[in-house]
Amino acid sequence: MSLDLVSSSRCFDGTQRVYSHKSETLKCDMRFAVYLPPAAAAQPVPAVFWLSGLTCTEQNFITKAGAQRAASALGLAIIAPDTSPRGADVPNDDAYDFGMGAGFYVDATQEPWSKHYRMYSYIVDELRPLIASSLPIDAGRVGISGHSMGGHGALTIALRNPSLFRTVSAFSPICAPTQCPWGEKAFSGYLGDDRSQWSKYDAVQLMLEDGWTGPEILVDQGDADEFLESQLKPDLLADAASRGDVPLRLRRHQGYDHSYFFISTFIASHLEHHARHLAVEQRMQCSLDRLTVRS
Amino acid sequence: MSLDLVSSSRCFDGTQRVYSHKSETLKCDMRFAVYLPPAAAAQPVPAVFWLSGLTCTEQNFITKAGAQRAASALGLAIIAPDTSPRGADVPNDDAYDFGMGAGFYVDATQEPWSKHYRMYSYIVDELRPLIASSLPIDAGRVGISGHSMGGHGALTIALRNPSLFRTVSAFSPICAPTQCPWGEKAFSGYLGDDRSQWSKYDAVQLMLEDGWTGPEILVDQGDADEFLESQLKPDLLADAASRGDVPLRLRRHQGYDHSYFFISTFIASHLEHHARHLAVEQRMQCSLDRLTVRS
Repeated sequence: MSLDLVSSSRCFDGTQRVYSHKSETLKCDMRFAVYLPPAAAAQPVPAVFWLSGLTCTEQNFITKAGAQRAASALGLAIIAPDTSPRGADVPNDDAYDFGMGAGFYVDATQEPWSKHYRMYSYIVDELRPLIASSLPIDAGRVGISGHSMGGHGALTIALRNPSLFRTVSAFSPICAPTQCPWGEKAFSGYLGDDRSQWSKYDAVQLMLEDGWTGPEILVDQGDADEFLESQLKPDLLADAASRGDVPLRLRRHQGYDHSYFFISTFIASHLEHHARHLAVEQRMQCSLDRLTVRS
Repeated sequence: MSLDLVSSSRCFDGTQRVYSHKSETLKCDMRFAVYLPPAAAAQPVPAVFWLSGLTCTEQNFITKAGAQRAASALGLAIIAPDTSPRGADVPNDDAYDFGMGAGFYVDATQEPWSKHYRMYSYIVDELRPLIASSLPIDAGRVGISGHSMGGHGALTIALRNPSLFRTVSAFSPICAPTQCPWGEKAFSGYLGDDRSQWSKYDAVQLMLEDGWTGPEILVDQGDADEFLESQLKPDLLADAASRGDVPLRLRRHQGYDHSYFFISTFIASHLEHHARHLAVEQRMQCSLDRLTVRS
């Protein structure tokens, strides 16, 4: 599997890169962004996947969130994939909330989407091992975060793969896509009308069914977010966390909206959360290694 | 003079706004961005104008530089205007480096540009007093900075108006537009072929002719900048500062390019520079006020 370097810029003493590669899962060329902190020059570093929201590409987060400052200081890599398959062969839809730019981090089962729209498997089974084998990233210390549709993606992917994604946080996530217009439209189109097939992509249902034994889940939500009541529904997530005994820290921020101005304000706090808990992972692993050596 | 609010988002406990207004100078509707730090809720704050580079609007800096964090902490407002007149009545050119998005911060004298392309007067004589009268900004403590074409704008506007713009810095500025292809093309078009009319818009010539008695001028330049030798020519600025006895701190950064990844890395350092020297202005003003009261 080869990576083609699209761009590379020095940033906060590290490097902000964009790569392209041929995705076997999505059957198209895909771009993703990687920020490597200065610490990655010496040894593999922990990483956080960032899943973006509707209409985004791999560019939005790396140009708008201002995350590189904290990532550099904390020694964290950040992987920011695109939000859907791309290219002339990939079916599309004119709407902003379906088709390209709106993959919803599911594996589509319905025609004509099922050939290419497999963002869930792309993130979990292709991109995650690819970056671990190609870049100075410690595959044992990987977290995941995202915004809006990407917050939904981060929560559902982590809840289903707690051994692969050790830490999870989200900004303004679509908490219950089976219960809001964005999710109902996307899931009907990609997964069909049998709602029993939807629940494995719904954070509220996954919390209730599978729980979460990892570190506290951090979610930030602005109370001036125009999509708060109609699409995001954090109250459902808080209720599910409570009933499912999931450690959730849901912070509500007065006056903040759905934009990157909100994300940029709190992204350092999220990266600190991931770095702190991924460092704990490392210390536990070191202790286990020592125990193994001693025995 | 009325301002129309286009957008407003909370950011680092302050507010990132965009306004539109009818510009008398440019004879068109113009947008500009304002970041107001939390301190502006209590009293007028110092401000830094940010002049953007070729192809930019008022959006680029506010979405890409990550400047709001430092501006919030330092209590600085940031004013980011558009880079040219706009609208259906405004003449344009297909090139990225002339016409809309490329006003070059000059007052055009040539047809068909002279009616609208008057960005120098717009910044100095219209927008500066407008924001001082409409927003909680201390008109006595205003600095200016910018990138590339906007770095040229910041340097030339400050050098010609040291009592209005007390501090100045720049990223990757076009240091000598009369001696590089971007500047020669723009100045020929906007100002005509008589080169004696060009020198008042050239930082190198202004340093030699007028000097600068304000605080140190801070300039950051990446050594991997693709435009370094052909367009930017910081050596000419360093030489002019030396010969004109102008306090210039020119920092060269290994591996950094012309992008916002470079700007975002060092913007906090620039804002600290402006805040520190504008605070000195305030202390001197307070001392003068006390002397006046005593006399």
